[in-house]
Amino acid sequence: MNRPTTVPTVDIYNAACPSRQVLNRIGDKWSVMLLSSLAEQPLRFSELKRMCDGISQKMLTQTLRNLERDGLIHRRELSQKPLRVEYALSPLGTELLTLLNPLIQWVHGHCVQILQSHNSYDNKS
Amino acid sequence: MNRPTTVPTVDIYNAACPSRQVLNRIGDKWSVMLLSSLAEQPLRFSELKRMCDGISQKMLTQTLRNLERDGLIHRRELSQKPLRVEYALSPLGTELLTLLNPLIQWVHGHCVQILQSHNSYDNKS
Repeated sequence: MNRPTTVPTVDIYNAACPSRQVLNRIGDKWSVMLLSSLAEQPLRFSELKRMCDGISQKMLTQTLRNLERDGLIHRRELSQKPLRVEYALSPLGTELLTLLNPLIQWVHGHCVQILQSHNSYDNKS
Repeated sequence: MNRPTTVPTVDIYNAACPSRQVLNRIGDKWSVMLLSSLAEQPLRFSELKRMCDGISQKMLTQTLRNLERDGLIHRRELSQKPLRVEYALSPLGTELLTLLNPLIQWVHGHCVQILQSHNSYDNKS
């Protein structure tokens, strides 16, 4: 049975489908690292900045905002004065992280092999 | 037992570790789409270009080169005159794709929910 034509098909191969932007954003290294950082417990901005070595203030702010906008993390104000905020995985973010974790492990496990492949490729060229 | 200090620890949280660049590259939307396109069979450049709606000639060339350099795909010359080339998943690429497939399915399955989250967020701001 064909789908009714009024229901748009979600498909990353279609340039007009927003799923492609979703895919790109969740595959971004900072998004992956931030979601993974929050696996154990909620964390504050400064703690996340310390964990994600090399991330700029601006990039951290932007990536957290995008993850919150996607519904993958929650931002919670602990106090107003002084402003204290913490970030936590949402159920959706937790679900996504279960798929990202094997990918992170794979990268860790195959990084050396990939670097060796770079050497072979570069020596051949 | 501690690791010997001469063995560098692969860790995406370390800005100096190349695993971070590997993670970023394999999470890129074009890399994911190209690897997934090759799941069933080897394909030629023009076939890949047609499948990945919206990819430029330059981006396709660059992404294929990076995937080949990472050892995730093989480039095979079928004939010299005229030059005919096809691309195929390597065993490493096939292994990676088994981890990327659930992620693609997740994006497809949750895209509408994420777009609804965008609406809520934007209306709140």
